Amino acid sequence: MKRFFNTRERLVPEALEGLLRSPAGKDLCRLDGYPDIKVVLRRDWDRGAGKVAVISGGGSGHEPAHAGFVGRGMLTAAVCGSLFASPGVDAILAGILAVTGEAGCLLVVKNYTGDRLNFGLAAEQARALGLKVEMVIVGDDISLPGHRQARGIAGTVLVHKAAGHMAESGASLDRVAAFAGDVAARTRSIGLSLSDCDTYDEEHASRLAADEGELGLGIHGEPGAQRIALADAGALMGLAADALLETLPDGDARYALMLNNLGTTPVIEMSLLLEAFAGTALARKVALVAGPAPFMTALDMNGFSLTLVDLTDGIAAALQADVGPAAWTGMAPWQEPVVIPVPALPDIFAAEPSNNPALRDAVQRGAKALLENEEALNALDARIGDGDAGSTFAETARVIDGALDRLPLADPQALMQTLGRLLARHAGGSSGALLSILFATAGHSTQERWQAALLDGIAAMQGYGGAREGDCTMLDALIPAVRALDEGVAWADIVRAARGGADATARMGKAEAGRASYIPDGRLDNVPDPGAEAIARLFEALVPGK
Amino acid sequence: MKRFFNTRERLVPEALEGLLRSPAGKDLCRLDGYPDIKVVLRRDWDRGAGKVAVISGGGSGHEPAHAGFVGRGMLTAAVCGSLFASPGVDAILAGILAVTGEAGCLLVVKNYTGDRLNFGLAAEQARALGLKVEMVIVGDDISLPGHRQARGIAGTVLVHKAAGHMAESGASLDRVAAFAGDVAARTRSIGLSLSDCDTYDEEHASRLAADEGELGLGIHGEPGAQRIALADAGALMGLAADALLETLPDGDARYALMLNNLGTTPVIEMSLLLEAFAGTALARKVALVAGPAPFMTALDMNGFSLTLVDLTDGIAAALQADVGPAAWTGMAPWQEPVVIPVPALPDIFAAEPSNNPALRDAVQRGAKALLENEEALNALDARIGDGDAGSTFAETARVIDGALDRLPLADPQALMQTLGRLLARHAGGSSGALLSILFATAGHSTQERWQAALLDGIAAMQGYGGAREGDCTMLDALIPAVRALDEGVAWADIVRAARGGADATARMGKAEAGRASYIPDGRLDNVPDPGAEAIARLFEALVPGK
Repeated sequence: MKRFFNTRERLVPEALEGLLRSPAGKDLCRLDGYPDIKVVLRRDWDRGAGKVAVISGGGSGHEPAHAGFVGRGMLTAAVCGSLFASPGVDAILAGILAVTGEAGCLLVVKNYTGDRLNFGLAAEQARALGLKVEMVIVGDDISLPGHRQARGIAGTVLVHKAAGHMAESGASLDRVAAFAGDVAARTRSIGLSLSDCDTYDEEHASRLAADEGELGLGIHGEPGAQRIALADAGALMGLAADALLETLPDGDARYALMLNNLGTTPVIEMSLLLEAFAGTALARKVALVAGPAPFMTALDMNGFSLTLVDLTDGIAAALQADVGPAAWTGMAPWQEPVVIPVPALPDIFAAEPSNNPALRDAVQRGAKALLENEEALNALDARIGDGDAGSTFAETARVIDGALDRLPLADPQALMQTLGRLLARHAGGSSGALLSILFATAGHSTQERWQAALLDGIAAMQGYGGAREGDCTMLDALIPAVRALDEGVAWADIVRAARGGADATARMGKAEAGRASYIPDGRLDNVPDPGAEAIARLFEALVPGK
Repeated sequence: MKRFFNTRERLVPEALEGLLRSPAGKDLCRLDGYPDIKVVLRRDWDRGAGKVAVISGGGSGHEPAHAGFVGRGMLTAAVCGSLFASPGVDAILAGILAVTGEAGCLLVVKNYTGDRLNFGLAAEQARALGLKVEMVIVGDDISLPGHRQARGIAGTVLVHKAAGHMAESGASLDRVAAFAGDVAARTRSIGLSLSDCDTYDEEHASRLAADEGELGLGIHGEPGAQRIALADAGALMGLAADALLETLPDGDARYALMLNNLGTTPVIEMSLLLEAFAGTALARKVALVAGPAPFMTALDMNGFSLTLVDLTDGIAAALQADVGPAAWTGMAPWQEPVVIPVPALPDIFAAEPSNNPALRDAVQRGAKALLENEEALNALDARIGDGDAGSTFAETARVIDGALDRLPLADPQALMQTLGRLLARHAGGSSGALLSILFATAGHSTQERWQAALLDGIAAMQGYGGAREGDCTMLDALIPAVRALDEGVAWADIVRAARGGADATARMGKAEAGRASYIPDGRLDNVPDPGAEAIARLFEALVPGK
């Protein structure tokens, strides 16, 4: 069992302490009563201020519910039980006494026998002490239609939200309780999971096969109402949405949707599931949406639940109101994705084509050389990398050779700019991208001479690529060659500089950047860097008249 | 592979569409360029307003990074690649062009060759078009100390945050870039995971054994720097915190901590991990904390990462500033959990003890009967439930019998109140809890006669317990008996009412509430409900003079 915990007994108190240390807990505190009394409450709450307190709770393992929803506009206190076990009466009573003033308090309770009875007992005890206490039971699970006692699942969070808003606005206990009861009655949920959950049980084995999931599940690992086959996200979402749709009356009612992460569904998949929901028939009835987010989880369950609330104007306003707790990630109008046009991208061949026979000839010779060396360079690369260095240089050569008639060959600056744009769009691999940076930077350099501008380009290559001279990359051939170019020496000397640099990479032993930098020291002895070797062979082919 | 997706190719666009439909996307839009151009940007952004744009991006699979951090005070746009693959140059350039005005833009790039080059190429292209573009590379991973190119991981989100704050405040590009560069240089992270991640590969098999994890990992499933043994949360957190601590200079520097969920660690465990962090030596150097939350995930990785930023006053202010994106769950001062005293709970024996010999005798006889019937009732319960009904009634009997000398036996109302409190604290099982509700409610009823008050208590039992008469529960014996009590008939008739109700449960066939309600129809034929049977046997024992 690969889980982050110390002992099962310390799991809940330690997690609550963590919550209280986090930004989510900065306005919270707890009652001093571990391990029996685990009550988290608003630190800024003044029970003499005349507002109704809203209290919820139940077994732990459903985080962020319930303690994560304590804060302005939601819960005043959460009474947390042990893992999947109702809190005791004393703990609930302590929570009630801690936050309840003359305005009274509302208990929002999920429909499980233990919670009903323990919260009920505490309510009676509190009433006996003269406090005004009301209780709303949430039973939003639609998956057991034959059973009179529907379970309380994720929809409970929306009852927190609605009741909390009403209480924050200063309404009386009667109004808060009636509103919460109305919202609870209008709320329905269904869960779908590809796993059961593991309650930190070393012996746990999933009841589900590798190609199975469940529809209509509780939040304590109870078997789902229906075993389903693994399918794509669209089909699975369709099952859950259709199950909800079947329970809706005909008519034009508009609903708020909450998409809940049941525990361990990755963030990217939760977003994708909302898009899948948009493709269901049910989506047409949805006016507001909350999530995707974890609201009411079941430990490590890999699944989601959908909750619908039949909206009134008052409920819609309450659900959209801003609140304190960060775990409530907001409810907003259901909308189509907003799409705007892509800005016009620059024209690669913005400069007028022109000719320069000598340069044209040199480019053709260079391209031919890189194409002819494709296999040899790939073979070299196979010894230290993924064996495609020759192909990426060849690809760059093909792109430039193919564009020769559209290049401003007579204008060095415009040519370098054009090559920068051309290779940015159609570069082969990292080497093509680096050459694009070389040319783009050189083409926009303020240097008067193009040779000096190329040195600026080389500086940019180092900046973006992260390699320096001596790191066993193509720069080790390119830098000496361009320096020689800049010095205006004879072509033979330029070629010698490139070749010397490439040969030196064979003796470097350890690459400090580029593809070879992740392989162990020593492996590179006597193998030149394929990029440096490509540059040397290119310069050898460029010798005028060759 | 139990994952929610349709095809690997559609994964990223579908997830982005879901984001744009969700509350987190309500102020966002995207460029019209799927599948190649996946750019999410602020809908309210006016590039003519003179503020610097902050752009980030990179391969997808790290949600909520980066698109989830687009919004006021953080990113202006996110350029999203395919799964774990850098976006293309055109996409990045389109993003830059869409949001960059005269104030220019800053690119925040994680230190991977593909991202450096593609963002670098796009930056050069944008500069060639006359735009002011700066770039900051984030390499916060400390796990490969011998490697000059540290990877960019979760700390990148803090650079977004800092740069976004500076840009939102209207600072110049130079200042935004310098600040972001400073924060990047002060940021260090390390990851720890119990799983590698699965890139939607049907053939994926974890490289880790059941008792292994990894320390010092990237966010693309690369092997971690170090294989570690599974251990408890405290020990695992200690490994990660110590690895960071070793890299810190001596001195009094104060740090901001970010605790990041790498993908599928349950919410409760992430909170627990923050508490575990509080126990490390490193915690003493922490002044601010963000998370736990998913900031920079690696798909379904079951792990966490820690990030530290060496604080200045300016960085502390920038990291704590309020922002638009809900995925940023805030940064707050590191604090000890705030603990307040538990309110005084009511004294069970608040009323003066008094005697009533006849009642005392009856209670003793009733208790004796329930104790004598413990085994028989357990045996009955074993046929339909978990076989403890007799024991829970016996426990209730023991509690009341043991408290006889402290009960106000001569004052029916005070007695019922006391029994309510007594059983709330020490009730056995659901039946004890229900009897506590019965007595507490009756004891605080406004009825003048205690018999009528008991009927109010029975109504409360039904309200909290959820069962009605005829549901095959103890109410089927209790209700007729209490009604008969209320009518003032002879004891023999009261007993007959209880016995008749209990016997009737044997013929009900199907329980509608309580423990037996989840077992199939027909299984209950001829078995009386053990709770009803207990009540009948109790009343039989109460007959005066018996």
